[in-house]
Amino acid sequence: MTEIDKLLFQKAYFDKFKTSLRTNLCGELCKGFLEKKVKICGWVNKRRDHGKIIFIDLRDFSGIVQVVFDHNYNPQVYSKAKKLRNEFIVLVEGKVCARSKDTVNEQLTTGEIEIFADELKILSCSKTPPFFVDQREKVDELTKLKYRFIDLRSDEMQRNLRLRSKINTITRDFLNSQGFIEVETPILAKSTPEGARDFLVPSRLNPGKFYALPQSPQLFKQILMFSGFDRIYQIARCFRDEDLRADRQPEFTQIDLEMSFVEIEDVITLVENLLKVIFIEALGFNQSFTFERFSWKESMEKYGSDKPDLRYSLNIEDITEVFKNTSFNIFINVINKKGFIKCLVVDDYNKFSRKDLDDLILIAKQYKAGGLIWARVEDDFNLVSPISKFITNEEKLQLIKKLNLKKGNLLLIVADDFLVACQSLGAIRAFLANKLQLIDYEKYKFSWILNFPMFEWDEQEKRYTTMHHPFTRPTPETEKFLETDPKKVISLAYDIVLNGNEIGGGSIRINDINLQKKVFKVLGFNDNTIESNFGFFIRALEYGAPPHGGIAIGMDRLVMLIAQAESIREVIAFPKTQSATCMMTDSPSEVLEYQLKELSIKVDKGLENK
Amino acid sequence: MTEIDKLLFQKAYFDKFKTSLRTNLCGELCKGFLEKKVKICGWVNKRRDHGKIIFIDLRDFSGIVQVVFDHNYNPQVYSKAKKLRNEFIVLVEGKVCARSKDTVNEQLTTGEIEIFADELKILSCSKTPPFFVDQREKVDELTKLKYRFIDLRSDEMQRNLRLRSKINTITRDFLNSQGFIEVETPILAKSTPEGARDFLVPSRLNPGKFYALPQSPQLFKQILMFSGFDRIYQIARCFRDEDLRADRQPEFTQIDLEMSFVEIEDVITLVENLLKVIFIEALGFNQSFTFERFSWKESMEKYGSDKPDLRYSLNIEDITEVFKNTSFNIFINVINKKGFIKCLVVDDYNKFSRKDLDDLILIAKQYKAGGLIWARVEDDFNLVSPISKFITNEEKLQLIKKLNLKKGNLLLIVADDFLVACQSLGAIRAFLANKLQLIDYEKYKFSWILNFPMFEWDEQEKRYTTMHHPFTRPTPETEKFLETDPKKVISLAYDIVLNGNEIGGGSIRINDINLQKKVFKVLGFNDNTIESNFGFFIRALEYGAPPHGGIAIGMDRLVMLIAQAESIREVIAFPKTQSATCMMTDSPSEVLEYQLKELSIKVDKGLENK
Repeated sequence: MTEIDKLLFQKAYFDKFKTSLRTNLCGELCKGFLEKKVKICGWVNKRRDHGKIIFIDLRDFSGIVQVVFDHNYNPQVYSKAKKLRNEFIVLVEGKVCARSKDTVNEQLTTGEIEIFADELKILSCSKTPPFFVDQREKVDELTKLKYRFIDLRSDEMQRNLRLRSKINTITRDFLNSQGFIEVETPILAKSTPEGARDFLVPSRLNPGKFYALPQSPQLFKQILMFSGFDRIYQIARCFRDEDLRADRQPEFTQIDLEMSFVEIEDVITLVENLLKVIFIEALGFNQSFTFERFSWKESMEKYGSDKPDLRYSLNIEDITEVFKNTSFNIFINVINKKGFIKCLVVDDYNKFSRKDLDDLILIAKQYKAGGLIWARVEDDFNLVSPISKFITNEEKLQLIKKLNLKKGNLLLIVADDFLVACQSLGAIRAFLANKLQLIDYEKYKFSWILNFPMFEWDEQEKRYTTMHHPFTRPTPETEKFLETDPKKVISLAYDIVLNGNEIGGGSIRINDINLQKKVFKVLGFNDNTIESNFGFFIRALEYGAPPHGGIAIGMDRLVMLIAQAESIREVIAFPKTQSATCMMTDSPSEVLEYQLKELSIKVDKGLENK
Repeated sequence: MTEIDKLLFQKAYFDKFKTSLRTNLCGELCKGFLEKKVKICGWVNKRRDHGKIIFIDLRDFSGIVQVVFDHNYNPQVYSKAKKLRNEFIVLVEGKVCARSKDTVNEQLTTGEIEIFADELKILSCSKTPPFFVDQREKVDELTKLKYRFIDLRSDEMQRNLRLRSKINTITRDFLNSQGFIEVETPILAKSTPEGARDFLVPSRLNPGKFYALPQSPQLFKQILMFSGFDRIYQIARCFRDEDLRADRQPEFTQIDLEMSFVEIEDVITLVENLLKVIFIEALGFNQSFTFERFSWKESMEKYGSDKPDLRYSLNIEDITEVFKNTSFNIFINVINKKGFIKCLVVDDYNKFSRKDLDDLILIAKQYKAGGLIWARVEDDFNLVSPISKFITNEEKLQLIKKLNLKKGNLLLIVADDFLVACQSLGAIRAFLANKLQLIDYEKYKFSWILNFPMFEWDEQEKRYTTMHHPFTRPTPETEKFLETDPKKVISLAYDIVLNGNEIGGGSIRINDINLQKKVFKVLGFNDNTIESNFGFFIRALEYGAPPHGGIAIGMDRLVMLIAQAESIREVIAFPKTQSATCMMTDSPSEVLEYQLKELSIKVDKGLENK
């Protein structure tokens, strides 16, 4: 029983729901109410007509209770009940009676009693619903989204949104207790095209000008620090007009917090305590918590990812050293280019068909690796591999020792530059975890990723971009490389990772105007770009900024992970599809000509192809 | 001392703010810390250079403490301190010492001590600020908005936003305790042009289509009721693209809540309890609370407004009956047209010059009254008035009796149809309250307005519009007039009024599809309009809806009233001006051509004049 369930079963909580139309909730009734007269409201979940006696399962958010309409007990009410259909909403007055022993349902908290109806009022009729709320798993997602008002009646959606609300509350309570205040920042904000694409809002009062919906409240949060608010948070709606990948939404929610006069450890401690209290209270989760820490490089080396899933081992090993004198051309080339030879070792090659190996090679290639080399450890440590003839005995012995090889092992080797070797093996690692069922779904494994490179090179744009955002502070030790060798700059950023998902990211921010300008310069911004995008922010910085830092935690993903839901759409009341439409309201939609005229804009579908 | 101040002064609360950079907050230091070494951070609020000794007032959000840089005590730190200027941000290490008796400042909680600095670190420099944070009342509002990051450092803005955060917390805590859950509804929603003007958001992925920012989460709230969530709330951001009146913002916040299986009394009780807890906890307000109730008609009759200010009396009186046999033509005409003769009685006509009376007449005319008739009560109850010759002795005696007239009284009379007579005298009533200083600013007087007409006639559009919204349920008794005489329909709506401000409004909603369609019909919507605007809502209604109702309380105005601030801009972190611009970020702004291309839109400023 989770905390939520416990709460639901508290009498005091139920009592709050007493209204003019009901004395009790369906789910609270039990033997303690025997012989009591009650007035309850709810949805007809199921109706069973047994001739002279009709049973309905009456449902409200708290649970289900059985109501009996007996021709002998009350013929008038009985005949009214004949009209009931699934999803009708009714008010029932009646007496709580014990069920006969053979009809007790031990699965239900209300299973020992039933209500003999003295009164029945149909509050609302319903068409036959497109699907039954207790059979949603059989329904395709688009239908569920179109009839969201039906789907939301299901146990799962009720549970998920109630859990989400609870996580909101826990978060706010905790942050309030730590001296944070909640400050709302604008949704009608300014377009700063750096970063993801903005949603724009034409201004009627300022023709030709546009607001942008905020991609995050980052700059406002920082300005609130400049303004002396010391600690602020917001459970903030953010917007990104991206081509939606599987599990993204055009609008999403993050726990966004910012603190003054802090260093990394202050933020990390606070966030760890926040996550602990969320997991303990929301989930009744008593597992002991550890937050491992990895530098970005270490995480890439070990797990091939900056969001490692630690619920299973299967680490990437570096075997470059083994092959330092190799005669195998591909390895030689890689080593000459300062690349790496890395591998995964899987227990049992018998689980892999030729086709499986081909699939793994495909994955490696998706991640830009030239290829994937496999090797089987057979009897007497015989290495069977497409490249076995290039592996000397000395190399083999070193491999056996370094990787602690055993008969039956399968080696999966990639030789490439650092990122490609790590990331392709990281993807294979994640694939294998599923295939080989290595994941313990009961586990919640947190880690911090630290010491990120400040910049990455964008091959397409031929310029540096920031790995986090331009307001992240470089480490004092590497700040000097800003002007000489930006790729050596390490940032004071930190990501918090849970079970292979990045659930949050933050940093200590720049609070020095000259440093900020240097970073903008590395990114190739000229004075105009800086002024038009960040002019106000630069001006604010001129009037002083305390050392500060913060984090943004993705609420949708966090709730999804806690609820063990399959997608973030399962924890959002009215989500959008991958084409960014709402199936229920049919939005976005065409608008009236006069609305556009007032906004001084015009639709021109041809424009996009020009 | 308010609750907030009390909280601020709790040691446990202060302790949370300990970080790598500080051991204490400025405002917590007092005699209890004598001889302790502390490390504090903050802004230089003031700097006084007394030759060999420099004093700074160091400020953080918790308060101000005096720091001493003494050449004799520590010459190195002293010389560093010479560089300090206002609004520099510094870290000071030093010892807490007692001030000499003659320098104790009893105004300050830290006024008995000062810090002798052993270390000084300048964390951030500042240009000379455009104004001092403790002198904001001398600065024009546009400058304050442009330099919001400075203005927000002021005591007033710190207090207001902290108060707002506290009210958020109290609201959520209370609603959570009453079984509500918080559900977030979309910001990228559907345009429903009925009502105020929508802000539109072009969809890139659906060229030619638009989202609308929600004017309120009304329909989503109701659909959540259809979905069985029973009780939900949201502190919701709402958007209206209106021509901004003095105290409006294009985006604003409301406490939006909805409950199932309720009648009016259930909602009213809940909201009264919510407001009580907000006022008691936020304000430490111990006044006993009463919530008066008026029908809309009664409120119009007595106060000439549906948002009566009850902090003073000065009620409108009806004297139509007195003049039923009048020979005065204007009165005869009004009575024949079923109009009313109404008046205000003011104590002392000596306070009114001829010019004052002319001003009052102007106000009456602004509210469409034909005119305003005044009458003075002189010696021996002699009525001096432009119309005295039309007033018979019998009428005079009746007036004296009915209005309890005394020598010196001034009567202000309007004869017109019901609404004009009430509203013009209502406006004069409000004007006089200020002029005669009748308002007790310590009072918080709540009232509920009930029994609103469902519809009002829109002379411009030649059709009925709803006084609240089309989802408001008519009373069972007047529902029958929907098809025969809509103006007789009374709605199950309620407004909550505080000191002459409507702070919230709500209703019991329609939960019957046929009734909903009838209301749409009265509003002149055809099937197409209904389908394109509310199709999804009608479809949801087909699958059943519980009886439900709710309310929306304007958060900005509520906080403003509690803070006794002069405008809602004083309780919003980053407000917009009357032309809907943000002075600080310079938004809305022009965007890049490619951004518009991607959205398949084009700016055409000529359009608005076509």
